Amino acid sequence: MNGPADLARIGLRWDPCGQAGLTGPLLALANDCDRAFRCIASRWRSQEEAYAMTLPASSLAGHLRSFPHQVTFATALDSAEANLAEFADGPVVDKSGAVALTRTAPVTAVLTPAACYHVYHGHQGEQLPAAGYVTTRNTCFRRESDYDPLRRQWSFAMREIVCLGTAEETASFLVEARAAVDHFALLIDLPMDWTPATDPFFRPERHPGHLLQRIQPVKHEATYGGSLALGSANLHHDHFGTAFAITRDGVPASTACLAFGLERWLYALVDRHGPEPDGWPDLLAAAGQVAAR
Amino acid sequence: MNGPADLARIGLRWDPCGQAGLTGPLLALANDCDRAFRCIASRWRSQEEAYAMTLPASSLAGHLRSFPHQVTFATALDSAEANLAEFADGPVVDKSGAVALTRTAPVTAVLTPAACYHVYHGHQGEQLPAAGYVTTRNTCFRRESDYDPLRRQWSFAMREIVCLGTAEETASFLVEARAAVDHFALLIDLPMDWTPATDPFFRPERHPGHLLQRIQPVKHEATYGGSLALGSANLHHDHFGTAFAITRDGVPASTACLAFGLERWLYALVDRHGPEPDGWPDLLAAAGQVAAR
Repeated sequence: MNGPADLARIGLRWDPCGQAGLTGPLLALANDCDRAFRCIASRWRSQEEAYAMTLPASSLAGHLRSFPHQVTFATALDSAEANLAEFADGPVVDKSGAVALTRTAPVTAVLTPAACYHVYHGHQGEQLPAAGYVTTRNTCFRRESDYDPLRRQWSFAMREIVCLGTAEETASFLVEARAAVDHFALLIDLPMDWTPATDPFFRPERHPGHLLQRIQPVKHEATYGGSLALGSANLHHDHFGTAFAITRDGVPASTACLAFGLERWLYALVDRHGPEPDGWPDLLAAAGQVAAR
Repeated sequence: MNGPADLARIGLRWDPCGQAGLTGPLLALANDCDRAFRCIASRWRSQEEAYAMTLPASSLAGHLRSFPHQVTFATALDSAEANLAEFADGPVVDKSGAVALTRTAPVTAVLTPAACYHVYHGHQGEQLPAAGYVTTRNTCFRRESDYDPLRRQWSFAMREIVCLGTAEETASFLVEARAAVDHFALLIDLPMDWTPATDPFFRPERHPGHLLQRIQPVKHEATYGGSLALGSANLHHDHFGTAFAITRDGVPASTACLAFGLERWLYALVDRHGPEPDGWPDLLAAAGQVAAR
């Protein structure tokens, strides 16, 4: 159990709106953890890519329709001088802490809901001569009804390893990726189980995507302590290959990803090994062994 | 001159809404550049701290009033089931690419306008026994009327070194910080000049803060090529110490910061040393020399 006081003592600065600031030992652990994930990614000679914080809404219509309850938009005031003046001359922020908005500009940008979306967008129109492997990290926003430090946050860091290739290449990648996570978890003594999962669709009972995921699992989560998903392995078939005109062997590429929720790893590591840094496992040594296999 | 084709060839993936994706040599240069800044920060034994992507609007009323044209808010739909259903059953995104919003929830979060704001917030209420030095990096959002790759972006990475202390400690820090930047710039052959600057206030002619900054410069920018500000050195006197009840020697702490705009350094380095990575200076070696002085 990680009490708030234990977590604060090792560097958590919790923002009650659902985000974690990290300092001290917890920040060092987070940096090591991400280094370990990048080391595991090197097993596939993954290229690192860094992307912007938002995606164009026009490329996310399906996502917006499926997850309207989770989405966060980037919004600005309409830039007309009179509108800005009306805002600046007004209360700006009301007594409840809400911004006293005047007219807003059209909203065209969505704060990143999943790090890998940028990769498909970034490789739009490419013809892949071989399977491609990319690793990327981004801050993802997912609104929830309640937040819990490191376990469930409005914004959190997601590190992903993405494979773009044939159906066989992506299937092999997922088998290897899950085995790599199992090996890493074993070496750092962090027990986890893979379980089939579905995405948190809005009105799941009416959503065709939800039905499809239940019939043919395309998402598996690595859970700690029975319920906390530390990561997921996802097969998208040719969904993104088709949407972004990425081809491999003359047909739309298949894609798959392995995603790590960084703050949840911190929670699990501290839960399992205690709040004292002396008791924490050597993540980089373990990742080095996994990458070398 | 960096043409768009040159920059794309070394890894820029420009998002026309005003953000840069980085891959390949340009990402490697960005990572080295940030490592160099952290190395320079070690000169003051700065503690690294990592913060969330947003700040509470309630703590930024003054900023919102001064820079309403630049601010970006994080917005979500009102979470009532019927409101979400109306959104999901609607067009979601219209023909112009704008989100077809239904009712939105009260806006309480502002996307970070400056990385150091989180530091004052994070150290609220502290009594400092000695000068404190913190380094932090965040993605900052500032809306502009036009964007230019790496030079002027809607969102960009800002690395800061912050000093919290007495008036003398913060003044000394700024002298040393500017000298450190000069030394670093000399070693990597990147000519720059320090010039007094003012913040881009809304209606500057009517803004008391703008008048004050012109009378007593508290902001100096390190400019490259005559106009591109690569960084700034800022003295806040006890503005944040008072606002966040941070004290030093029994009175509100003074604060000062040295800020680096990461993408602009990439632009300047490539402009000065060309697009071939072989021609780029050894940033870490130079930073090591600066830190050791």
